[in-house]
Amino acid sequence: MKHFFNRRETIVTEALDGLLLTSSAGRLARLDTFPDIKVILRADWDKSKVAIISGGGAGHEPSHAGFVGQGMLTAAVSGEIFASPSVDAVLTAIRAVTGTKGALLVVKNYTGDRLNFGLAAEKARAEGFDVEMVIVADDIAIPGINQPRGVAGTLFVHKIAGYHAEAGADLKMVAAQAAAAAHDIVSLGMSLSTCSVPGQAHEDRLGAYEGELGLGIHGEPGVERISLQPVVDLVATMTERLAAKVGDTGDHALLINNLGAVPPLEMGVIANAVLSSPIAGRVRLIIGPAPMMTALNMNGFSLSLIRLDAAREAALKAAVAPHAWPPATERHEIAIVPAPQRPSMRNGATSASDDKHNRRLLTAVCEHLISLESELNRLDSRVGDGDTGSTVATGARSILSRIDTLPLKDPAATMASVGEILSTSMGGSSGVLLSIFFTAASKAMAEKADIAAALLAGLDRMTFYGGASVGDRTMVDALAPALAALTSEGIAAAARAAATGAESTKAMRKARAGRASYVGERDLEGVPDPGAVAVANVFEVVAALA
Amino acid sequence: MKHFFNRRETIVTEALDGLLLTSSAGRLARLDTFPDIKVILRADWDKSKVAIISGGGAGHEPSHAGFVGQGMLTAAVSGEIFASPSVDAVLTAIRAVTGTKGALLVVKNYTGDRLNFGLAAEKARAEGFDVEMVIVADDIAIPGINQPRGVAGTLFVHKIAGYHAEAGADLKMVAAQAAAAAHDIVSLGMSLSTCSVPGQAHEDRLGAYEGELGLGIHGEPGVERISLQPVVDLVATMTERLAAKVGDTGDHALLINNLGAVPPLEMGVIANAVLSSPIAGRVRLIIGPAPMMTALNMNGFSLSLIRLDAAREAALKAAVAPHAWPPATERHEIAIVPAPQRPSMRNGATSASDDKHNRRLLTAVCEHLISLESELNRLDSRVGDGDTGSTVATGARSILSRIDTLPLKDPAATMASVGEILSTSMGGSSGVLLSIFFTAASKAMAEKADIAAALLAGLDRMTFYGGASVGDRTMVDALAPALAALTSEGIAAAARAAATGAESTKAMRKARAGRASYVGERDLEGVPDPGAVAVANVFEVVAALA
Repeated sequence: MKHFFNRRETIVTEALDGLLLTSSAGRLARLDTFPDIKVILRADWDKSKVAIISGGGAGHEPSHAGFVGQGMLTAAVSGEIFASPSVDAVLTAIRAVTGTKGALLVVKNYTGDRLNFGLAAEKARAEGFDVEMVIVADDIAIPGINQPRGVAGTLFVHKIAGYHAEAGADLKMVAAQAAAAAHDIVSLGMSLSTCSVPGQAHEDRLGAYEGELGLGIHGEPGVERISLQPVVDLVATMTERLAAKVGDTGDHALLINNLGAVPPLEMGVIANAVLSSPIAGRVRLIIGPAPMMTALNMNGFSLSLIRLDAAREAALKAAVAPHAWPPATERHEIAIVPAPQRPSMRNGATSASDDKHNRRLLTAVCEHLISLESELNRLDSRVGDGDTGSTVATGARSILSRIDTLPLKDPAATMASVGEILSTSMGGSSGVLLSIFFTAASKAMAEKADIAAALLAGLDRMTFYGGASVGDRTMVDALAPALAALTSEGIAAAARAAATGAESTKAMRKARAGRASYVGERDLEGVPDPGAVAVANVFEVVAALA
Repeated sequence: MKHFFNRRETIVTEALDGLLLTSSAGRLARLDTFPDIKVILRADWDKSKVAIISGGGAGHEPSHAGFVGQGMLTAAVSGEIFASPSVDAVLTAIRAVTGTKGALLVVKNYTGDRLNFGLAAEKARAEGFDVEMVIVADDIAIPGINQPRGVAGTLFVHKIAGYHAEAGADLKMVAAQAAAAAHDIVSLGMSLSTCSVPGQAHEDRLGAYEGELGLGIHGEPGVERISLQPVVDLVATMTERLAAKVGDTGDHALLINNLGAVPPLEMGVIANAVLSSPIAGRVRLIIGPAPMMTALNMNGFSLSLIRLDAAREAALKAAVAPHAWPPATERHEIAIVPAPQRPSMRNGATSASDDKHNRRLLTAVCEHLISLESELNRLDSRVGDGDTGSTVATGARSILSRIDTLPLKDPAATMASVGEILSTSMGGSSGVLLSIFFTAASKAMAEKADIAAALLAGLDRMTFYGGASVGDRTMVDALAPALAALTSEGIAAAARAAATGAESTKAMRKARAGRASYVGERDLEGVPDPGAVAVANVFEVVAALA
């Protein structure tokens, strides 16, 4: 396990400073006791309301400092990684933010936190502060345990307590709401890897095909080692256990928590699995997926449920300052919008038509390109992957085979059809590039019947999307000078310019686009670009028929 | 590398459904071409403004669908993992959301995306849609390259284009702003591990002490293999290269992007390092840290900079619907709030005083507890870690050594002092628990001079924070009945009750709190809880002196 850090000793303070520096100005501050005592508090706090204080060991970011802000926590006290903050640290936080309306401490159920926050609360009371404490013990992993752990469901309590405090409720009311909420929360976690502490040797206790169910947020073992399995099965196990705790009725809010290192793609898969499982029927609000209560770099997630009533629903839906809290979403079906039909002009509206000259031209070009297959492949084998001849021949064959369906009387429509055919049958980047060329040329031709101008418009789009310019050792080196000459001097000059252009690629030492850009300079020397050669051959055929 | 997924083939569609299910109702929809053609679009879109369309391969979540919403993207087209969506998919998206004001395609500079989005754009134009495309090529990793990759800086273009479109600008203006923005962006990435595709065998090309600098977002190798080093050094290298590109002047916005699996704690450390580096002087706005353009589970991050002017600053600061976009923060110093001083009452305000009876009582209790050290350790070695006697004796010694400083005439103040001493010198959970006991008792005693009531108040707080009840095989089993008896019958009855309570712990088969909760039932049988025995001994001494 590799980590981004400087020194083990300063990870927590550096991360807190990172939070302070990247939170909006005027929102957060730290006490001047930092770094010994690490308290992050609202910079705009005037003590006119009940203060909500939480905290605990670090390693759970964005908990807890990331949730300090209007509508949630007033202050967060951070210990070192996975170590409870000292009594003094908690007491310092209480003194700093508690006014006449008092303070509520929200504590996850771990012995160190209970005792340190507890003693700090008693000391603060002795000093005359009005302090209450709510302990969250939401983990259902271990059946029959006396003291379940406090895990991600704690976020529900932060949000609900923060809401009532913000609304101006007194401490008794805030504490009662928080305690009642804490009582109605269940959580369960699942991970594919244990977490590792930066700067500390780590050995994963899990095998390559194992995960753990029912773990805490400090790297302690889960209650069950389970084999790797599809997410739907993992989620089924988890939601069945959660469902057994919450009963068959009632609306709930669901919190989907990333335990640290699950990539967003997979969190999306997990969210879909949960909300497609039977428990979704009991879910009314969704919070997440997001990292809210992490365990360092644990590759796992947890699910939390809280029973809802109108007051809790309002509390969970209220907007808050901390961006780490994702807005609660009401459960809903996926909205589906019908895609528009293809415009009718595309569905054979341009019907086949014959034109002797155009048929002869197109046939001659295609047949010639097919005859070049081996030679172009040979050239390409020296500078690329040896398939230019086959790709070009495939495109030419597909046009030949459909020549009777083409609107040959209408050059613009014919170019559009050729573009369409090449995009689906020729393959490779060159198929798409030529399709772009003919599609754009067709549009220009339809607007103004000038073949040279139309083809130049096609070239413009092809080079824009393809990124190649003259000198980059591509077909553009033949096509660009040919079309320039075509405009001013006609087809014979265009054919000469194309040939010269193709020849010039022999001397180009560095390909800057296409597959040949991976080939060394020496290997390119003296070999023309096969695409440019193909273009020169096309112009030669057309000029000969003119 | 282990992943949460069901089947390789359905990861992308499941993740997109997860996004749709967890975004607010009425915000997002998908086209009914799903899952073949994966287009996520604004559910509230009325085509009255310029549409902003982006997309590309999947594996970059929350890009791109996560940024669909008011003020950013109108629609996102997703391919499979790391594979560009088809021309048809892009064309379908264009048709679905483009009105008379046209559409802007924002495309990261990868050949597949350029060509597929490009051909779709040309086809859409041929159908009469007004479509422009901006290509983002912000990666500075490879010097002198013709076609730099498009990476996380693309988010800046999404935001700026989305802002102008939302403001009602026409396509020409939106495209011009987006193109100018794309021109002024630089990005550089860094990773400690390569990404792995779910369901596909993976071998990390990096050793245990290696990372890579200058990588793309598809697992392609970085330009340099570098050794693991402190974040400040990694950041110094990266910001020097970025600084060389942006020049010495001008304000910039900085985007700190999590490439997939960096835990929030470490992203905080990274953010702090960047904003403490010299480049911070050129940073005016900060976006992130957050996962915005990920590469599956890559354990890496990227930094992007864009040159600011007033219009861009306004565009980047405007609020948007997608929560995946973190609000831009103006660079600022860390705010520091002075911690309040300890209340004066704590600083020796309660001065030492002597009281013969209380001194004799306290001395006798402490000396007796010290005499029990070996016996209590012996009991504890059978049910715990064998240190109860030493812990208790340490606490007793520390009180004895400070007995001349105690305010012995004032029982409430004496209890407060004992609580203070035990919290710092006794150690362990029991030191904190007894400190809570005496601190809470002191407060009650000060309010009402009733020793039994005061001690019961202490017990109440100790059991609340400690979590143990009668029957849990702790000192509470002696203390609770003793204090109950003290209230109603006096100290002799209390001592008897304490002894009976301690004796009762012998029969308790399961400890539900404290260290003994980890010990098997058989090992506990017949051994009393050493904490309860200590309590019983204290009451015995006090009763004897009464």
